[in-house]
Amino acid sequence: MADLDFIRKLAIPAETKIVFLVMDGIGGLPVEPGGSTELEAAHTPNLDSLAQKSVSGCTVPIGPGITPGSGPGHLALFGYDPCRYIIGRGVLEALGIDFDLQPQDVAGRGNFCSVDAQGRITDRRAGRISTEQCIKLTTLLREKVHVPGVELFVEPVKEHRFVLVLRGVGLAGDLSESDPQQVGVPALPIRPLAEAADLVASRRTAELVNGFVAQAQQVLADQAPANMVLLRGLDKRPAIPTMKDAFGLRAAAIAVYPMYRGLAKLVGMNALPSGTRLADEFDTLERAWPDYDFFYLHFKYTDSRGEDGDFKAKVAMVEEFDSYVPRVMALKPDVVVVTGDHSTPSLLKAHSWHPVPTLLHSRYCRCDGTLKYGERACARGALGTFPAVDLMPLALANALRLAKFGA
Amino acid sequence: MADLDFIRKLAIPAETKIVFLVMDGIGGLPVEPGGSTELEAAHTPNLDSLAQKSVSGCTVPIGPGITPGSGPGHLALFGYDPCRYIIGRGVLEALGIDFDLQPQDVAGRGNFCSVDAQGRITDRRAGRISTEQCIKLTTLLREKVHVPGVELFVEPVKEHRFVLVLRGVGLAGDLSESDPQQVGVPALPIRPLAEAADLVASRRTAELVNGFVAQAQQVLADQAPANMVLLRGLDKRPAIPTMKDAFGLRAAAIAVYPMYRGLAKLVGMNALPSGTRLADEFDTLERAWPDYDFFYLHFKYTDSRGEDGDFKAKVAMVEEFDSYVPRVMALKPDVVVVTGDHSTPSLLKAHSWHPVPTLLHSRYCRCDGTLKYGERACARGALGTFPAVDLMPLALANALRLAKFGA
Repeated sequence: MADLDFIRKLAIPAETKIVFLVMDGIGGLPVEPGGSTELEAAHTPNLDSLAQKSVSGCTVPIGPGITPGSGPGHLALFGYDPCRYIIGRGVLEALGIDFDLQPQDVAGRGNFCSVDAQGRITDRRAGRISTEQCIKLTTLLREKVHVPGVELFVEPVKEHRFVLVLRGVGLAGDLSESDPQQVGVPALPIRPLAEAADLVASRRTAELVNGFVAQAQQVLADQAPANMVLLRGLDKRPAIPTMKDAFGLRAAAIAVYPMYRGLAKLVGMNALPSGTRLADEFDTLERAWPDYDFFYLHFKYTDSRGEDGDFKAKVAMVEEFDSYVPRVMALKPDVVVVTGDHSTPSLLKAHSWHPVPTLLHSRYCRCDGTLKYGERACARGALGTFPAVDLMPLALANALRLAKFGA
Repeated sequence: MADLDFIRKLAIPAETKIVFLVMDGIGGLPVEPGGSTELEAAHTPNLDSLAQKSVSGCTVPIGPGITPGSGPGHLALFGYDPCRYIIGRGVLEALGIDFDLQPQDVAGRGNFCSVDAQGRITDRRAGRISTEQCIKLTTLLREKVHVPGVELFVEPVKEHRFVLVLRGVGLAGDLSESDPQQVGVPALPIRPLAEAADLVASRRTAELVNGFVAQAQQVLADQAPANMVLLRGLDKRPAIPTMKDAFGLRAAAIAVYPMYRGLAKLVGMNALPSGTRLADEFDTLERAWPDYDFFYLHFKYTDSRGEDGDFKAKVAMVEEFDSYVPRVMALKPDVVVVTGDHSTPSLLKAHSWHPVPTLLHSRYCRCDGTLKYGERACARGALGTFPAVDLMPLALANALRLAKFGA
């Protein structure tokens, strides 16, 4: 339903303010059958009090059974169909290091790897070289490799990972990967994908990338174990309408991690300086309050502790977040949404497909008697189990920012 | 959502096993307002115990208010969009008699009927002749009728019903029916449907079928009351990806009735010898356990007793099925789904549109506090009321057989 063009036509101006409180990977699982999830185990008086003034439900980020990556999980929350607006791995990695990616740039994720004398891969991650070594090698590549007609950026990430960005006119994404995902074989040449939208431009870009790879192999020849590169997910950033265009919202992102700031910038949000601690993020929210209609506030560590498999630590993160909720309510927002971009049960130590417990509070939300912010409570809420992409139209409606459809 | 191509790209290999326990027509209705359904009235300690370790919901096989036939009801369960993959009546009838239908065959459902001297239909079912008579007449048609360029199969079914199969090159389905669905008028000529995909091949096939009908009328002239034939649902089997292709599953079907075995074979399942009694089916499950990733176990008699309008007998069938559930659990399946292909309330004596109570149990299912396997309990489950076609992606996810979407 939540078709962007449909919603765009109904969006009307208003003075109301919407806050999305996004606890990354908030959904969980009990460790013992019949037990509580992390969220249910947490002591969350403020979120529970908010739940009692909210309508609740569970969001499905992508589709039933589908485990979302952070990119599509967030796009859905922002109101964009995550199966239509695809974010390549290279773009996501570039966002993650706060690289200022331009609309025409092609970005790819790189690995330093090890090859033998015949060019066959012996280690796809070059023994996970240190980040320090990665910085040294990317500097070397920047100095020595030159591909005519394009500006190259080779940016270190962490350990064996780097980002390659090509900047120039007439470039296109939709490129295959050089990483064969196995050892004992050489890297694959980059080719345009069969479904490439602009085959000529993709073919040219593939040749430029292959030129980079050939030169990189020469430059790295004596740098074993990191004597070759592998590239994946070469693509442009998707062309996405801004939240201003789509919903008429002046939107701000408050997030510590570059990737989430980057995702927010993809949809035209202003990424505010957000410090490093949760307290800094709420300071930012208070300071910026007069200047925006929509605030996306992101908390990373619920996901991190879930990925660690640390149930108790995830519980503690939820409780820390809960303690800041009164500061949001004191601002008297018109609409508050509490949700996550996906579930990260500590039992699975990974993102999962499980629906995400979600609250929506406003003067007009038709409270459903939910007593607590938790998986089982929200699963019984009046919003039911519903697509995450529908959350934004619901928030806009509750902010009286959508006109009537039809006469 | 559950787009087959989307799911196919995410499917990953695993050692996990999935069991679908399908009680045909399991959903029901109370006979007295406020009373219990068949399932609610049944004593089902094993299913209730499973419900307490499951997430529950109610599946909508096709769409709200739509009563499914067995074909689309099962395709949805198997994860295939039942509105995209259409199974013709002839194909379904051929599957029902275990006919080995080839991809290029065109199958139609036939009725022996009665016509007067002017060729006007006087009884569309020829007074429901005996099956014995049907066998005699189909043998006669096989011997006497010959249509150049195609191999003909005329197979008896039950009473006045038979199956016609045309085998040859360049045949096509999308044909109209000769049965005018009323008496006092002659049979209609078979024509290609306006929406036929290959109009030339459909027209040729229609001519061949009309040739068969003309000859059959001559051969049957002195066989009153069965002195003519009517044909419906002439079509090829739909081109469906196998479950191996679509989901990476080695799939087995355990079913007694040929039609359900045939439906399973349409999606590439191996239909195992399953005996005649429910005990035989569970014997088969145990024997075949090491050899497959996915098991579809079908129980027919919940539907049969519903069609009979026999509430108590349907309750007894549910209770019989319940007694076998511990044998499934003893195999320690990774995912168990309990559901049906549709509802068959004994109150209606027919298939119905009502959502189907459904359980999904796995180590990671996020139990929702369901206490019982029944219509009202499942309607409050965390899966909500959801499309049956989404069940397969959910089962795959719970079996850890789907990769993350996007980075």
